[in-house]
Formats: sequence, structure tokens, C-alpha cells
Amino acid sequence: MSTERPGVTPEQRPDPAEIHGWMTSLSNWGRWGPDDELGTLNLVSRQHITAAAGLVQAGRAVPCGWPVDPGIPDVYGAPQRLMLLGGAGPPPEPPARATPEPPASPPAAHRPHRSAVEYIGLAFHGMTVTHLDAPAHVSWDGAIYNGRPASAVRFDTGATACAVTAASRGICTRGVLLDVAALHGVDWLGPGYRVGPAELEECCRLQNVAVQPGDALLLRTGTGRRARQPGGPGLRDEHKPGWGFDCLPWLHARDAALVGCDSINDAVPSGGGGHGFDLPVHLVGLVAMGLWLLDNCDLEELAATCAELRRWEFMLSVLPLRLAGATGSPVNPVALF
Amino acid sequence: MSTERPGVTPEQRPDPAEIHGWMTSLSNWGRWGPDDELGTLNLVSRQHITAAAGLVQAGRAVPCGWPVDPGIPDVYGAPQRLMLLGGAGPPPEPPARATPEPPASPPAAHRPHRSAVEYIGLAFHGMTVTHLDAPAHVSWDGAIYNGRPASAVRFDTGATACAVTAASRGICTRGVLLDVAALHGVDWLGPGYRVGPAELEECCRLQNVAVQPGDALLLRTGTGRRARQPGGPGLRDEHKPGWGFDCLPWLHARDAALVGCDSINDAVPSGGGGHGFDLPVHLVGLVAMGLWLLDNCDLEELAATCAELRRWEFMLSVLPLRLAGATGSPVNPVALF
Amino acid sequence: MSTERPGVTPEQRPDPAEIHGWMTSLSNWGRWGPDDELGTLNLVSRQHITAAAGLVQAGRAVPCGWPVDPGIPDVYGAPQRLMLLGGAGPPPEPPARATPEPPASPPAAHRPHRSAVEYIGLAFHGMTVTHLDAPAHVSWDGAIYNGRPASAVRFDTGATACAVTAASRGICTRGVLLDVAALHGVDWLGPGYRVGPAELEECCRLQNVAVQPGDALLLRTGTGRRARQPGGPGLRDEHKPGWGFDCLPWLHARDAALVGCDSINDAVPSGGGGHGFDLPVHLVGLVAMGLWLLDNCDLEELAATCAELRRWEFMLSVLPLRLAGATGSPVNPVALF
Amino acid sequence: MSTERPGVTPEQRPDPAEIHGWMTSLSNWGRWGPDDELGTLNLVSRQHITAAAGLVQAGRAVPCGWPVDPGIPDVYGAPQRLMLLGGAGPPPEPPARATPEPPASPPAAHRPHRSAVEYIGLAFHGMTVTHLDAPAHVSWDGAIYNGRPASAVRFDTGATACAVTAASRGICTRGVLLDVAALHGVDWLGPGYRVGPAELEECCRLQNVAVQPGDALLLRTGTGRRARQPGGPGLRDEHKPGWGFDCLPWLHARDAALVGCDSINDAVPSGGGGHGFDLPVHLVGLVAMGLWLLDNCDLEELAATCAELRRWEFMLSVLPLRLAGATGSPVNPVALF
Repeated sequence: MSTERPGVTPEQRPDPAEIHGWMTSLSNWGRWGPDDELGTLNLVSRQHITAAAGLVQAGRAVPCGWPVDPGIPDVYGAPQRLMLLGGAGPPPEPPARATPEPPASPPAAHRPHRSAVEYIGLAFHGMTVTHLDAPAHVSWDGAIYNGRPASAVRFDTGATACAVTAASRGICTRGVLLDVAALHGVDWLGPGYRVGPAELEECCRLQNVAVQPGDALLLRTGTGRRARQPGGPGLRDEHKPGWGFDCLPWLHARDAALVGCDSINDAVPSGGGGHGFDLPVHLVGLVAMGLWLLDNCDLEELAATCAELRRWEFMLSVLPLRLAGATGSPVNPVALF
Repeated sequence: MSTERPGVTPEQRPDPAEIHGWMTSLSNWGRWGPDDELGTLNLVSRQHITAAAGLVQAGRAVPCGWPVDPGIPDVYGAPQRLMLLGGAGPPPEPPARATPEPPASPPAAHRPHRSAVEYIGLAFHGMTVTHLDAPAHVSWDGAIYNGRPASAVRFDTGATACAVTAASRGICTRGVLLDVAALHGVDWLGPGYRVGPAELEECCRLQNVAVQPGDALLLRTGTGRRARQPGGPGLRDEHKPGWGFDCLPWLHARDAALVGCDSINDAVPSGGGGHGFDLPVHLVGLVAMGLWLLDNCDLEELAATCAELRRWEFMLSVLPLRLAGATGSPVNPVALF
Repeated sequence: MSTERPGVTPEQRPDPAEIHGWMTSLSNWGRWGPDDELGTLNLVSRQHITAAAGLVQAGRAVPCGWPVDPGIPDVYGAPQRLMLLGGAGPPPEPPARATPEPPASPPAAHRPHRSAVEYIGLAFHGMTVTHLDAPAHVSWDGAIYNGRPASAVRFDTGATACAVTAASRGICTRGVLLDVAALHGVDWLGPGYRVGPAELEECCRLQNVAVQPGDALLLRTGTGRRARQPGGPGLRDEHKPGWGFDCLPWLHARDAALVGCDSINDAVPSGGGGHGFDLPVHLVGLVAMGLWLLDNCDLEELAATCAELRRWEFMLSVLPLRLAGATGSPVNPVALF
Repeated sequence: MSTERPGVTPEQRPDPAEIHGWMTSLSNWGRWGPDDELGTLNLVSRQHITAAAGLVQAGRAVPCGWPVDPGIPDVYGAPQRLMLLGGAGPPPEPPARATPEPPASPPAAHRPHRSAVEYIGLAFHGMTVTHLDAPAHVSWDGAIYNGRPASAVRFDTGATACAVTAASRGICTRGVLLDVAALHGVDWLGPGYRVGPAELEECCRLQNVAVQPGDALLLRTGTGRRARQPGGPGLRDEHKPGWGFDCLPWLHARDAALVGCDSINDAVPSGGGGHGFDLPVHLVGLVAMGLWLLDNCDLEELAATCAELRRWEFMLSVLPLRLAGATGSPVNPVALF
């Protein structure tokens, strides 16, 4: 039987004015110059990269991305895969072997070969595909991160500033797993559960890890386990646990370079109250802080590996596609131990 | 003025019977068991991963992928990016009527926010998108790698064996750049130029690097520089330099885990003679050897970095998307120094 | 040398309050019952269909749709066509004829056949694809036609009311071409030119045709001729002529069932003044009147045929695809004389 | 309880040499000149169009296309519909900051409006979407209709000859329903049932209709009724009834301009024996005869209407999209009585 820690009640909601204040008090606008598009990725220095590589001692690689499968529907439709094969209509041609060849002619070298070519299509910003959000993904009050106009993101040109291509060098830094589901000894946190700063601190203590500037922080809520329950809601359940709104000052104070979760990062419902603050981590994080977000990670194997090795830090590699004009990218983040 | 080393004449072609023989003599079928789908990625051990991480000393990251841009046409059409703007996540914004507005000016917190959601579509197995080919990408004589039937790759199901998802843990190993364009002191090798084993050996000597089992070998022909020439052919020129057919025994003997190039790996024309051997590196490599291929890399900044640091080895990370049923994935490989 | 009738100045703009008033005074909400989704298509009776067929006397068919071509970019990207062929990579396999066959075996019947299968993708609501707009295409103040909530159109489900599938029986009725470019003796009306009711009346007089309830009215501005000018703007020029806002009462009084144009119907700039009234024909027509719209027709051959036959009425057939949940469809309207 | 007339046994197969002979004896190559791309549509004269319009006497329209629904999977994947909501045309809404708001409540005219913009994607040549096949859809022995090389259909350019755009004027002619399911008094013909010429003749007699050159012949097998059975196979069942191979000489002798069916026209299994003759109606019809095909029609309402009006002839309109380079088009054919 599975255990769940229930979510908080919707009444426990923040003061919208407080969140609004964070748009200024937690802002990184101008911090790295007026032209900056990198946001918190500026916090990953060469020293961070080298130090992260130093964490690779066991040679073990753990993927944190979910499969991208045409059979899994999502908010904007299922991923799409078209095979441009040697197609001769619905029934594929029988393999050449089935047809006994004449002994001498044609020559053996003359055997047929085929290439498979796929067309892949996906609207990845939903609830099932593991993806990276760039700062341009969200605008507020007519502006995106660093004060660029929201009109920098258009139907025709895509994002002309703060796009995912700002991270074309990839994100390689120390990753830290914050396993709050394990902290509470439950299989998963319930839908709408909002993790708070005190739990994060407690988690660090228990895991014997100190968060440092430039880290990639991955929050495990156990959603991956819940999604795998037979007959369960899968990843499509709209109500999910995640970072509570009051983690925002905590994340800003610790100078996290990247934040990820096995949900969409924001707890839903967030308690944000509908005034544009339904997804406060997305809003304050992306727009004010320039904080890059990893949504929909699969952290189950990662959690098991951390527990086995008794260490919750590792080298994390997130290598977004260089999608010109896009505000994010599907990714398969990999943790190396 | 740019310099070019012209391609060999089409008459210097291999004996089709010789290539046909390699389908057997260079085969890895059965080498890692009858159920193997990993092919040469079996050669990357935990020790390889740890050793590769040890090469990261300067904290420098160099991307090897080209931008994926709707403005760049390719064989199967240009990449596609649709912006689904205005989406604020699963629940749509409530209609204005439902929310009675306050009589005076709206509170500051009430300002509009917007999310950008992209649909990305691409047929990546062309000549412009940097991508990884899994063994299932090519079949010959009714079979793919390790003797699976070619019918394992179908219109409806995609690839049910030897798909790109076999590499879901990512590929992290020692990368070695073989800068043959620099070896010859030219800007690029001409279309159809076939690099041979002797040049590879000479290149290793000059770069003071020894190829080892489990390495990812990246061949630089200078095509990236040629593609950037103003008024030049871009990446679409069908005739390209690459590994000559006679590199195949050399690659097999050295147990390369991954092979990449700034072209499509195969030189075109290859001299293969039209008997299904037009792309011998794809054919023998993928089908017989189970050798994973990185096509269309951008190796210009990588070459400059290697030359600057006087070392041609680095940690290479290739993290394919977990595309269920696909025979490859677009990627942005990153080299760490 | 081509002639143009210049557009009106942007200062000649309507009173927003007047347009706002039309949302009520020109409304068809409730006219055909509270559940109606057909809007003005209710005006096409069986008698209209039979009468329209009676206009077919010369057996001539004139298409009014533009080609849908991957080479023509549009606001949301170019149309997409992927060929799922008997593809063995970029160069197609040589036809069997090129390979001389052995005289006896294989038998003649054994020759290879291939099917081509296309994937077609298009965001047709732009400025180049001829398409039909259903009432659900636009919402205003939280509602679509007939008072349905705007939330009836969603990311996941598409339009659940007033969708294009309401017209699944097709639209076959009398079509009338109003050739205002010819009325003025110019090749085309200039960008931003707003045709007014007086010109429509004059046009009917000159063409000796009386507009009747249930008609499909096609306005020719000459944009098709302008788009074909060598070195011209094509169809992508954002500023276009069209129905002026003050045609709305005229169209409502005449009970047009369908309205089309060789532009996007609305003149741009429309003089609407930015208060949601930039496209008043779309707004008032679709939302208040339930008036179906044909955007981006090609009316050049139609105009020539009308002039040749000295009649500007014909049977018009518009057969939208039954796209579940869509608010429109690409079409190729055909006029029969 | 539903009734079915079982299909013939697979053993009743034609002589491949006989079908092969039809590639010559039923050929229309050269009949309309060496450059012809219209094939059997040449048989629809102006007189045919006028006469067809004369059949419209009751003003009733009956659609023959199935809905195109993202919820209905097909051989190459389900149709795709992406909603690009919130788009109000090319210029995005100005950021809130730029427009100083009036101090009091906004004027009534200022209410928000939204446009829905769809992206529609479909690989329509499957088993669920009603579509038209142009002659270029199939090649045989290196050639398509009228002796053009099969290489006229390519990955990059699409079809450069005999494409669906040859029918850009639409197909409007007399349609005749051949209701063979009704002839046999069954709900449907079983999978694999091959209708033969004798049944067609009997059907014409019973329905009191004579087939004439230039007609569009629609064969009803009852598959539409079967597909609607609760818990039934839907349209995806690969085994279907259809025209038997021996209808080909009959269709050729009667000079049908267009042939359609509520299945994929060919009975599957066809008895063609695997030598490229699995779909003989597609093969001989498209390649040799240049005969246009309508696959996957929904003929249930049409059959009911014919029975009610006691006439099986009508005006049929098929208006394919002008898809440049495509070998077919999704359509919604409409019959007018």
C-alpha cells in the first residue's frame, strides 16, 4: 500500500501583494548587465564545471528524463513520430530473405538496404515531457527577464531574446537532489502539496549536503512513483506537489543556477489566488530572477542511486537542443556519479 | 582566400565484394549476446566515464551542435516551430465577464502574464541538424544490427529494437578530435574527399593522442567553415567529405564506441558504386558493427579550443532525447575541457 | 504599368462606441434558437441550393483557392509536406528500368511498386492559405457567437461549439462577385483601402445583379493581381484592402450567408483604433452575426470569367474538411457557371 | 443483430499475369496526349458539369466524408490539431505598460477579444480519413501514369507531375451510388469481400440507373455501418471489402471518371498474391488508367437518402485542396440532390 502526505488546503495562500513585491525584491534585472540573457546560468563558473566533474567517481549515469512517446497524450496533444520509411503503403514489404534468391544472379552485394527517417513533433511545455524552460517562456506586465519587452516573443519570429539558445553551451554543474518525499517517509507528496523552506533545510541536514551558489537543485516529491502506479493518474493529473511559493526567497538567497522537480516545479494549486500568480515559481523565477527551470523530471532512479551511494550530489548535465527562437527545449538530463 | 583539398576521383572505388565481406568480418553480431541493442556503446565502461570526467580541468564547455532553425531548409523540409502564445497553463484564463472588476484602477498584482508554448517539429535525419543515429536507422538484406528483422522498424510502431532509447543513459566518454583539415593545412577538405586510415594515424601522431577502445572519435573535415562562407553552399551541399570506406576496418580494430563528423560521416560520393553501398559507413557501421553515428556536428569552435589548449581529448556528452520508437535523435553534443 | 486606388487615411476611423453598439444591434444571437451553431448558414435554404444549381449553364468551373505550398512562408510558418515514400535516404533508388533485367527471371509481374504518402501540416489562419472561418474563431468579452462562453474553445479539446464541423454539409449557394477594383478601373485597391456600402451598391448596379438573402458575397480588391506582380509583396503584405467597417450594417441588412474576399476581408489598417476593433468584420461578423468568412480567396480568374460571360452570379461550393474541434478549414472554393 | 455477407476465400485469386496484362490493355497512357496529367478527369466535359447540376432538384446536401479527429488513430498516427490561442493576428497586443489605462473602469468597447488559430496536421492516406488519390500516388516498375518516371515523386519536391493539383478546378460530375450491400440485403459485406462486375450490373438494374462515361461511381459495402457498431473494429480493421480485381476491365470499359468506396476501394485481402498486386485497383487504376480514387468515404447517409428519394444519381462535388506536390488530398465530398 502506498503512502501519501496530503497537500495543504487551498486556503493557505500567500498575499498577492507579497508575491508582487518579490517581482522587485528578488529581481536579478541588471545584475549581469543590461544585455544579459543568461540569468542564473551566470552563476555557473568554470570552477563549478570542473568541481562538478570531480564528483564523477563511480562512472554511473542516471537519466532524469521521461520517454517521449506518441502513446502518451499531453495537454497540447501527444508527441508525434512519423516514419519516412521505404514505405509501400500499409503493409510493409516482406524482407528480402523471405524471397529465396537465385543462386548466382543478382550478386550477393546487391541486397536491398533501407533507411528509416523520423519526423518528430512535440509541444513539450506540457505535463509529460521533461523539458527546460528559458527565461523568455513567461512574461509579466509586458516584460520578460531583464526588462525586455514581452513583444520579443512573437508568433512569427519566436523568442528574439532570452531564448533557450542562450544555454547552447549546455548546463553542466553540481546537482543536488532534495528528496523531500523520503524526508517524510512517504511514497509521494499529495497533489497540491507545497514544500516549504524549512523542509528544504531539514532535507539538507539529513542528506548532509550544503546548497551552494551555482547548484542545480532537484526537488523530489515522489510524483514519478505515483505516476507509475497501475491504474493511477499517470503524469496528466493537473494537481501536483511542488515548490511552495515561499521557497522563492530561499532559492534566491542561495543563488541556485537551475531548479528542477518531478512535477512542473510549481505546486498546483499553488494558492497563488488567480491574479497571475497561479504559477509563482514560473512567474517570479523566470521573469524576475532569470531562473531556468527543469519541469517533469523523473527522479525515481536518481533517488535510489543517491540512497545507495549515500550521497545526494553529482554532476548534472542538461544539454538543450539549440532551437532557434524557442523558449525551452525537451531534454534528457543525466546525473553522473 | 580559402584553401581546399580536392576530393578523390569517383573512379577510386572499392570492390563491392570487399564491402560485402565486411558485413561479416567486421560484424559485432552476437558479441554482446543475442539480445544486445547497445552495440558499440557496450565499450563505454564505468571506468571510461570516470576517466573522461578526469579530463575536465579547465571548466570550458564547447557545443558541437548546429542551431535548429525554421529558416534553414533541409532534405525533408525545414524545422518547424509553432508558437502557442497566450497559454497560461492547463486552466485557461477566466473570461472577463466572470471576474467583476474593481471600480478603480486594477491593483498592481493584477497585471497580465503570458506563457509561450512551442510546438517543435523536425525530420532531423537530413544534412543540417546535428543528430545521433541508432543502429536501427539502417537495415540491409532484411536485417538490422544483431540480426533482428528489418520489420522491427515499422510505420506504426516505429523501431521496436535497437532504437535510440537504448542510449537513454546518455553517452559520456572520452572524445578525441581528429582534425584532418588542420593536418593538411587547408580550410576544408573538398566535396567527396575520403579520409583514409593513414591520415588518421598521421593525425594521431601530430596531435599526440592515442585512440583507445570506448572513445568517441570526431572527424573534422572543415565543412563547418565551408558552410559559413558567405554566398557558399551552406550545409545543404550533397557532396561532402567524410570517412572513406577503408576507415571501417580501422574503426573496428580500435573499438570506437561512437563516431562523428562535421559531415554525414560518409564521404559523398563514397565510391560505393550504387549497390547499396553508397553510404558504407552507415551501412557497415550501423548494421554490422552496431556503431552509433553523430552526423552533422559543428566542430569549428572545438577545433579552435583543442588547438588553443594543445590537447585533442576531452569529455564528450551526447544526451539523446528518449524518443520512443525512433532510430535517432537530434542532439547538441558538448565537449568539456 | 499598374494602377492602384490608394487607401484611406488612418484618421478616417469609426467611433469605437459605434462598433460596440453593433455587437448588439447587428446581433443574430438567439435568432435561430439558443442552441444554434450555424449562424448565417441558416439563411441557405433548400430553395437556395436548387436555385444556385440552376445557374450552372456553361459547365465551367473556376477555383478560388490559392495553392498551398511549402515554399510560401506565412505568419505562423510555411505549410508543411512530408513525403513518406519508399525512401532509402536522400537519393531515391534508381528506377528498375535503369537496371537491365535478366530475360526470363524474375517474371515481369514481379516489378516494384511504390506508394507515396504525404503528411500535410498547416496553420491555415494566416495570410496566404484560402480558408473558411467558423464563428468560434473569435471571441469577445468572454463569449463567442450565440452567447457561448469563450472557454468553449480550449487548447486540449479545440472548439466544442460553433466549430467548422457545423458546416459539414458544405456551403452551396448563389455566389455574387462584387468587383470593386473593376468598378474603379484600377488593377487593385491600395493597402488599407476600405470599401464602403456606396461602392457596393454602385457595383451591383453596374454588374446588374441584386444581392439576396442567403448569397455568398465575394469582394474583389485586386489583391490577387497585386500579389502576382514580379518582385511584389506577394500575399504577405500585412496592409491590405477589404470591407470597411461600415459595410457591417449593409451585410447584416442583406442577410449574406457567407462573405469572402481576396484579402483577409477586413481592411488593414481598419481604422478600428486598437480597442479590440482592429478587425471589425471578423469581430462583429463572427461573434455578433455568426457570419462565416472566406479569407484569402484568389478572385482573378473568377473576375475574368464573370467579365467574359457578362454575369457576376454563379453557383459557389465551399466544402470545408470536417476538422473536429477546429474553428476553420483550408478550402478550395469553386464557382460553377 | 447485424448481417454480413462473408468475404471470398483467399484462394480465389487472379492470375498475376492477367493483372500484369491489364497494365497494358487497360492503359490510358497517351490517350489524352503525352503531357496529360488529368487522366480520367478528362472524361468530365462541360456538358457533364451542366447535366450534373441539373440533378439538383431537392436542394439536399449529403456529406460523404468522415470527421478528421485527433482522437482517431490511424496507420501513420492520429490527425493533429494544435490550438494557437490568443493570437489576434500579426501584431501582438501591446504590452500593458505602453497603454496608460484610464483611471476609472475601462470603457465597454475595451473588452478583450481572442482569436483561435489551428495548426492541422495529418497523414491522410490511411484508413480513416476520406481522401482523394491522384495518379502520382502509386508507381510501378519505375513509372507513374502516362509514363512519367517514378522519380517525379521525391522527398524534397513532392510530386512534380500528376499531382493532386491537376484537379484544382475540382471534380463536379454526376455521381452514382452502387449500393451492393443493399443489393444483397445485408448490413455490410465482410472483410475481404470482392465485389464483381456481375453484382455491379445487377445493382444498376435494381437501382434503375445506367452508368455513363464521366460518372463518379461510389461503391457502398456497408463498412460505414460496420465501423459504427459499438465495440466494433472502427475503420482501422485492415481487412475490408471493396472492388474485386475483375472490376477493372468493367470500370475501364465504362469510362468512369472517378471511383470511390466506403473502404479503401481495393478489397483486402485482394487475392493479388503479393507480387505488387496486393492493391490492384490502386495499381492498375492509378498507374495504367490514370483513374482518380476516393478512399474511405462515409456512404451511410447517402444510401439512406438515395433509398428515400428512389434515385441513385446526384451531383457530386469533390474539391481537393491545392496541395502543391501532394499525391492526394483530404476531402469532404458532398452529394447534392
